[in-house]
Parts: sequence; C-alpha cells; structure tokens
Amino acid sequence: MSRFFSGKYDALTPYTPGEQPRGQTFIKLNTNESPYPPAPLAQQYAKKEAEKLNLYSDPQCRDLMAMAAEKLGVREDQILFTNGSDEVLNFAFMAFCDAAHPAVFPDITYGFYPVFARLNGVPYTEIPLQEDFSVCVEDYIGLNQTIFLANPNAPTGICLPLSDIERIVAGNPDSVVVIDEAYIDFGGESAMALIPKYDNLLVVQTFSKSRSMAGARLGFGAGNAALIRDLNTIRYSTNPYNINRMTMAAGVGALEADGYFQVNCRRIVETREWTGEKLSALGFLVIPSMTNFVFVKHPEVPGRDLYLALREKGILVRHFDTPKLTDYNRITIGSREQMKALVAALNEILEVAP
Amino acid sequence: MSRFFSGKYDALTPYTPGEQPRGQTFIKLNTNESPYPPAPLAQQYAKKEAEKLNLYSDPQCRDLMAMAAEKLGVREDQILFTNGSDEVLNFAFMAFCDAAHPAVFPDITYGFYPVFARLNGVPYTEIPLQEDFSVCVEDYIGLNQTIFLANPNAPTGICLPLSDIERIVAGNPDSVVVIDEAYIDFGGESAMALIPKYDNLLVVQTFSKSRSMAGARLGFGAGNAALIRDLNTIRYSTNPYNINRMTMAAGVGALEADGYFQVNCRRIVETREWTGEKLSALGFLVIPSMTNFVFVKHPEVPGRDLYLALREKGILVRHFDTPKLTDYNRITIGSREQMKALVAALNEILEVAP
Repeated sequence: MSRFFSGKYDALTPYTPGEQPRGQTFIKLNTNESPYPPAPLAQQYAKKEAEKLNLYSDPQCRDLMAMAAEKLGVREDQILFTNGSDEVLNFAFMAFCDAAHPAVFPDITYGFYPVFARLNGVPYTEIPLQEDFSVCVEDYIGLNQTIFLANPNAPTGICLPLSDIERIVAGNPDSVVVIDEAYIDFGGESAMALIPKYDNLLVVQTFSKSRSMAGARLGFGAGNAALIRDLNTIRYSTNPYNINRMTMAAGVGALEADGYFQVNCRRIVETREWTGEKLSALGFLVIPSMTNFVFVKHPEVPGRDLYLALREKGILVRHFDTPKLTDYNRITIGSREQMKALVAALNEILEVAP
Repeated sequence: MSRFFSGKYDALTPYTPGEQPRGQTFIKLNTNESPYPPAPLAQQYAKKEAEKLNLYSDPQCRDLMAMAAEKLGVREDQILFTNGSDEVLNFAFMAFCDAAHPAVFPDITYGFYPVFARLNGVPYTEIPLQEDFSVCVEDYIGLNQTIFLANPNAPTGICLPLSDIERIVAGNPDSVVVIDEAYIDFGGESAMALIPKYDNLLVVQTFSKSRSMAGARLGFGAGNAALIRDLNTIRYSTNPYNINRMTMAAGVGALEADGYFQVNCRRIVETREWTGEKLSALGFLVIPSMTNFVFVKHPEVPGRDLYLALREKGILVRHFDTPKLTDYNRITIGSREQMKALVAALNEILEVAP
C-alpha cells in the first residue's frame, strides 16, 4: 500500500480470480469456461470490427440492444450491457445499496459480493445456507434490504425454481432483488419473465459461460426501465464506452446464432449428467447441479488433497479454502473427452488413496 | 430515477460523450479519433483471439506487460492496463481522493474529472485557466490535494513543457499528481521519464488516439510500484478481467508496430500544421495545439452557428455550450482529404456569413 491510498479501503480484500496458468498445458476445469469456441458468427463479426478500432464503439450499443430485444424478449429500455456481468453487479451495489439500504446475500455464494460491498462502503449481512447448501426461501422474505442471489448458486450449482424466486421478489416490494443468473442456461428457469410484473427485480446474465465468451467480457442487467436508467446514470459517470467494438459485435453474433448456443447448452447438460454418474460411482457426493460445473466431495479424500493430486496429473479444478467448503471441489464441465480424462485421473488417485 | 436509486448520487450528472451518428455519412471530426486504421499487427493479433473467446483473458495481462516494459521503458510493476484510460482515471479518484484529500483540476479540462469526483463523493476545486487558456503553474504548487492535469489539456490543445510538470510534481510531494497524457504523442514530452524520481506521480495514457484503438478500449496508468499496487487493489475489487482477450492482443500488436505508430503521429502533426495555417488564413484564432485537434474561434461567426453550419454540410465538430468555450469549436485532425473538405466547407460558410 502506498502512503497515498485512501483509508476508506482499509478493510478491502480484493477478489481472487481462478488460476490462469501459462506454459504448461492443463485440462482447465477451474473457471467454468465453455469447452466450445464462440459461435462462428460471433467470431466473424468480431474480426470485422478489428479493422475499425480507430473509431469509438457505440455507447448506446444500438445493434446489440436491437438483437437482444429480438432474441431475449426484453424491451430496449429494459436492458443494459456491461464489460462482463461483474460490472453490472458492481453498478447495482453502487446504485441500490447504501447505509440505509444494506446488502444481503447467502454466506456461500459468488465470492465477489462481499468485495463489491466493501469497495462501496456498503454494510452487508450474509445469511447461512441450510446444511444441504440450499437457500431457505423464508430467510429472504420481508428483509427490506437489497438482496443479491445467484441462481443457480455458485459454487454449489443448486437452482431455486422460479416460483421461489418470485416469492422473494414479491416478498421485498420496497427493495431491489438482484438475481444473478450467470449459469441459468444450463437447465434453470430465468426470472426475466417476471420483469414486466415487478419494478424491483434486476436480472443479471453473462455471455461468459453458455455463449462461450468469457474472454470477450460481456454481461447485462435486465429489469424495469427505471432501474436500467439508474444503472445507465452510473455507467455514463464511470465508463460510457465500457464495451469495445469487437465484443459488441461478437455479442450480436452470439445472440443471432441461438441454435449454436442451444446445442452447446444441451451438450454441457448431457456431459454434466454423465460426469455426475461416473463420480457417484467413484463414491463422490455430487450436489445436484443446474450449471456447467459440479460441486463434489469424496467421503475419504480431503478436498485439498484431491485438488493437488489432480493438479499433479495436469487437471485444474477449483478448491475453496474456507471451513464450510474445504471438503469440496468445484469442477467445470468441459468436453466429453476432458471429463473422461478427469474420471480416469480420479480412478488412479482413489486407487492409491489411503 | 427509480425509487430505489441511492440518494448519494443526487448531485451526479453523467458525462456526455461526443455524438456517434449512424446512417448518414458524416466526416467525423468530433471525438478525436484517428483517421488511420489500427496497426496491421494489432488487427491480426485481435482476430486470432476472436477464435478463443471461450477462455478468460489473463487478469495479469502478462503478454501486454512484457511488451509495454520493452517499448515504453517502464518496469512491469510500474504499469496497470485498464478498459480505456477513463477506467484508470476513475480508479485514481477512488484510490487517492477522499474528504481528507480533495481533488483539484483546471476549470477548463477533460469534462469527466468533475463527474468522477461526484461519482465518488470527492470534494473538488476547479482552478481557472488564464485568459489565454494556459495553466498557471504557480497555482498548482503546494496544494496538498490530489491534482489532475491533462497535458496537453483538452479541449484547448495547449501543452506544458516537462519542466513545468516536474515543478508541479515536486511542488506537491505529499499528494498524488495525475498527469493525463491522452494526447501526448502528438508533440508533447511525456512525464513517464519522471517516474523513477517521484513516488507521487501517476501518468495516464490511452491507445485511443495515437494508436488508433478508440474502439478497442485500452489505457494505462504508469507510476511508482506502490501506487500501481493500490490501483490493482481497486481493479481486483472491481473487475479483474477488465480487459478482453482481443483488446489485450491488439495492444501487444500496437506496441510492437511502433514504426507504424510513429509515422501516423507525424502525419497527424503535419496535417495539424497545414490545417492551422488554412484556418488562420480564413481569419480563425487557432490556439497552438500539441494534440490531434485544434481549438478555434472565428471573430465574426458564433461557435454554435459554425458547428451547425458544418453539421448541415455533413461535417461533425465538437461544440461545448459553456460560457467560456461557446465561441470555440474543437476540430479533430483527420486525414488530409478530410481537412481539405473542412476548409472548403468553412470557405463556403464564411462567404455567406453576414
């Protein structure tokens, strides 16, 4: 820390992204990336824009908005695109939280929420998940605080049904409820359908996972037009050109290629089911997942040992070194071949385990 | 505004980006874009990355850092890349300003500074420029506040010599001095050379103008390693993957192609001198510019009338509707052909002016 750093960040501990190794070739199952390349149309549009980078991108994202309105079923004034969904999440902490409107989220969820809260000096409460890692819906009724819920949740993979989400949104009519749907396309039911009915609902999605665009950085918030206007006030006061030309064009292509997107989601879901069966057969407890990862523990081998043993064999998974999660590992669903390699490696590891 | 928007933003007025028209074909001289495409190498590297968007970008920007260290003469721990230079400017307002460390900048400068100050709840003072739009260096000595100076300044184009910048940095040893060098490559002398000497200096640059990458969104802050660590604490608490793969690769290509960059800067400077002479001959007052724009007024035609008359003729320039600037227009230096069209249009407009 320099002698100039503002004291308001004394309690700030930055987010730790998943390891991005270089050089050595790992099977990377640690950051929930898609094993499939971006849609050919997304690639093609992005490449064309690479030739025009001397011109600013459109701060109004008009082409992307028009395609989103067509493909996602929202009006153009109900959506806002950002530099990854992290950006719109941060904007929501800025816009809808303060000392009078604290934030609340589960104790086990996306690790960035407490970081955003501290960054913005927002008081927050963490509500413990139940023993089985599920969200107790009753805990979130009538809170009158700004709620952040990842659905499906991470790193557990558990998804609440839409009826439960609606109870929470309806049960906090005077607070914003943010539903972070980073993984919704792998089997969950989106809350986007509730937008016309509730003015306090903000749905957040990303192109990183199901649309194979983690490296492009594109996410969005969708909700009532007044909420979106507030978020745009923040955006235009922070970084009006937050999305570059190539990513914006890739986003148009990815939305246009919805067939490609659906096939990939289906393949991930099938591979997830296959992987779950294989891991169960190896003795793992596999939490029922509606995402592109599984959260698993073995009754005999500690989570960290397993993580290290897999790493030794060239397979990266994500281990969280916190008391409630330390028995587990979060394993991204890659291609069928990658998952076969994972199962083979686990077979070897467990054979020699004490 | 929604009923949920935090009251802390009551005084916030977002930044207004320059007009980005679509459909009709304008000669766009309103947002200081380069008339030249990005370096072929930048395009080539970006296109290759478009095929790998399913994988996250490197939050440590290692390839880009290595190339920057080679080409920009800074150590890797002295530089931080951001999603456009607006992002690092905002990070600097966050990290180095608070109630005890107010911000200070000229009354006429980049319009985003007061927006960042209000966004972050930072008190600020605007110091009036002198009558001729120049910065009075004495005004900035011993302030003990966080200083933001665009050098060259915008929208005036006036550049302070490095010796004056050093006096200001040395004259505020206990405050951070941010030198925003968005336009430095068009004839000014960068303060990067002072980094080893002063721990309170942050130099900000962008790839938007001289490197033809406005649409890619890439900027950086360079300074003492401790300052850069602070800014990284903010970055990793905001958006660790702030730069997408394509932009990161384009940045590597743009730095590698330094010959292309130098030729383009020289062409802009030559065209600026040519344009200045032509406009002077038409009776304009042309403020001496060290940027890729000129700031001009005509003794007889009001600035806004000129802006509208040019717009009518398909040429966009930037007019600022504030008392001190209303007589002027800021005109980007485009290609020689574009500037010939500008001069021809002005000839026609002035012939029929009353």
